[in-house]
Amino acid sequence: MSFTYEYDRPAFTTDCVVFGLDQENLKVLLIQRDIEPYEGQWALPGGFIKVGESIDNCARRELEEETGLKNIFLEQLYSFGAPDRDPREHVITVAYYALVNLTEHAPIAATDARNAAWFSLHDLPSLAFDHDQILSKALERLKGKVRYQPIGFELLPKKFTLTQLQNLYEIILETKIDKRNFRKKIIKLDILIETDEFEQDVAHRAARLYQFDQKHYQKLVDQGINFEL
Amino acid sequence: MSFTYEYDRPAFTTDCVVFGLDQENLKVLLIQRDIEPYEGQWALPGGFIKVGESIDNCARRELEEETGLKNIFLEQLYSFGAPDRDPREHVITVAYYALVNLTEHAPIAATDARNAAWFSLHDLPSLAFDHDQILSKALERLKGKVRYQPIGFELLPKKFTLTQLQNLYEIILETKIDKRNFRKKIIKLDILIETDEFEQDVAHRAARLYQFDQKHYQKLVDQGINFEL
Repeated sequence: MSFTYEYDRPAFTTDCVVFGLDQENLKVLLIQRDIEPYEGQWALPGGFIKVGESIDNCARRELEEETGLKNIFLEQLYSFGAPDRDPREHVITVAYYALVNLTEHAPIAATDARNAAWFSLHDLPSLAFDHDQILSKALERLKGKVRYQPIGFELLPKKFTLTQLQNLYEIILETKIDKRNFRKKIIKLDILIETDEFEQDVAHRAARLYQFDQKHYQKLVDQGINFEL
Repeated sequence: MSFTYEYDRPAFTTDCVVFGLDQENLKVLLIQRDIEPYEGQWALPGGFIKVGESIDNCARRELEEETGLKNIFLEQLYSFGAPDRDPREHVITVAYYALVNLTEHAPIAATDARNAAWFSLHDLPSLAFDHDQILSKALERLKGKVRYQPIGFELLPKKFTLTQLQNLYEIILETKIDKRNFRKKIIKLDILIETDEFEQDVAHRAARLYQFDQKHYQKLVDQGINFEL
């Protein structure tokens, strides 16, 4: 082509909100910045895009560089571009969010992040830039999604008990759920595979383990089935 | 701050998918490009951001400049950034989507668009760039949304009949809906205000007009009520 766009342009980054779940809490993965601005403060992992790199790739690359996390479920969340969101200059960021199972993923800090750690959503440090806003948006999306689709399975181990699953919904939606109703509904959705295995090393009676039936779920989605719980 | 980010950066644009509804069809607003690349081809209205301008403002400004449309419901859709989506160079775009009532809005072409017009989704011209992909994503979002929230009211006149409302759902979801069931469900949602007015100038028995109760709807949303139809 005969010309390119020659006006000034904003800088462009990606940022990732990575949610993890332990027994009691929804957690988010943060990195501690070792460069200005906000040096020493906690922030979402992310960074500047390279020309010629797709947005998805940028998000995956920066996440891996800063935390060691890779090959995880990652979904685009929203773009943030308020002119004053970065003190340096106008920076537009596309935020992503991800769900991981905390027992299977342990992040390691690398390159331009000094430190990476999981923080409970109930005990967050002050965040750099507008990252508190981005985190709120991700949480809102997560809550909206679990109401309509069984999206939270990535937060659980591959095999889980119905109690663990109920616990996940209760933590994300921040509400108590009736056990009997929950079990009736979740079984009726027909997206769980009952395994022959049971919990190990528990004081109470060992509960049966289930797996998420991704294939059958996809079939039902294609049929327009409703997954509201 | 003491430094800025000095590497090469992609260009950045916004694009808008504006849906409109007439009696029979869902339509989309397109502009005909009068500059290269894709000179003469139809495309979504949109253009380059100015440094210091928010993404939302860019979307609104470009839409008004190119089509005359303003003060409409506009929501961020998704970011597209494949390195080869623009033949000139790496351009990232944030797409928005909007719903308007065709009887109240008539777009007028302006500035860098040669022509603006509504096209039925069943009779689309070949689109510039990756705009067919952006349009598909917008349609998917629209279909997903109307299943869970009464988002389509912006497509109707302020006062509408239940038949018009049912028609809207049938057109968006591309499926026939049972009239009796639909009416029962929509009345039960309790988000319509029954007016004392009736249709004008119709051959059949004039049907009652309704209005969308935005305030009460917002209250129900805050209570976590489900709006699935």
